[in-house]
Amino acid sequence: MKILLFGAGGTIGQAVARELGSRHQLIRVGRTGGDLQADLADGASLRAAFEKAGAIDAIACAAGNVRFKPLDQLSDDDYRFGIEDKLLGQVRLVSLGGRQLSDGGSFTLISGILNYDPIAGGASASMVNGALDGFVRAAALELPRGQRINLVSPALLDESLTKYGAFFPGHETVPGARVGRAYAKSIEGRITGQIIRVI
Amino acid sequence: MKILLFGAGGTIGQAVARELGSRHQLIRVGRTGGDLQADLADGASLRAAFEKAGAIDAIACAAGNVRFKPLDQLSDDDYRFGIEDKLLGQVRLVSLGGRQLSDGGSFTLISGILNYDPIAGGASASMVNGALDGFVRAAALELPRGQRINLVSPALLDESLTKYGAFFPGHETVPGARVGRAYAKSIEGRITGQIIRVI
Repeated sequence: MKILLFGAGGTIGQAVARELGSRHQLIRVGRTGGDLQADLADGASLRAAFEKAGAIDAIACAAGNVRFKPLDQLSDDDYRFGIEDKLLGQVRLVSLGGRQLSDGGSFTLISGILNYDPIAGGASASMVNGALDGFVRAAALELPRGQRINLVSPALLDESLTKYGAFFPGHETVPGARVGRAYAKSIEGRITGQIIRVI
Repeated sequence: MKILLFGAGGTIGQAVARELGSRHQLIRVGRTGGDLQADLADGASLRAAFEKAGAIDAIACAAGNVRFKPLDQLSDDDYRFGIEDKLLGQVRLVSLGGRQLSDGGSFTLISGILNYDPIAGGASASMVNGALDGFVRAAALELPRGQRINLVSPALLDESLTKYGAFFPGHETVPGARVGRAYAKSIEGRITGQIIRVI
């Protein structure tokens, strides 16, 4: 398969590439690195990346930013930052990428554990993750030509424990390899409309 | 208790008022009718309504708009409409109303069944409802002075079946009175961070 992978340079993107890179053609997309450059929050850059990529069999995303702040410091603009980037950025992958996606091809988006298992400072992240849950379940009903869509929702990764562990007290972590396999389940399997929790 | 009820004139708002009106002081807020006027999408109007209301024991919302369209016709602006109104509008009730809410006072927000049980044309609604799930679970961790927050997530109401039933094929409906009791559970009970599903 020809797979367009957004956020290929990040911790999750690298895990996805390790799982899928040996048996598929990966086109890596990053904001600055990778085979193609695009920014989730910039629709024009996404449109250009899809055009360059041509026909594809899977669109996978391992990118998306939100702001972490105490609840009483989160402004409308802080919420809108995550909404435009991690939430509507991934929705745009569906609206802009669908035309080039093959019959039966898949979208695999990324959320995270925080809407089920919240932390202090994470209200914007929890909001965006929950929004992606709802969007994916609904979008699956209306995609044309057998196209599929799933959401990977991982706990904190082992690989991110040193950097972010202090913000996730008592949370169990998961190896990146398990997250990579969750993408394989979406891309190589037949499921649609599923929240694939890696916990 | 002194309860500020947003969306008091709607089907759900009326059900909430029927449940709570006889034993509490209700201040009804509507876009045009009610005791006070405010629009969820207009922060300044919310600020003014809170100022007029003074000290309160509960903030309840039964309002919020989103656009229903086929997935391939939903634009960024269509999504943003629901995000600014039903989603960030209710988030603003928390950020702007908290100061006047008593110790142990409650926020009760409204979502709906569509993020669990989606329908065609409902991707924006499912997104916004899921976002509210995540937000409420996270915000509950950080509210000060024992303040609480819950989300009421009802199925289609019996009272709305004639108007909207055709869009919800095979869905079971629930009586508005049950939705009213869900608000009572949040406002008069002690729970916080809960999604109160009325299905």
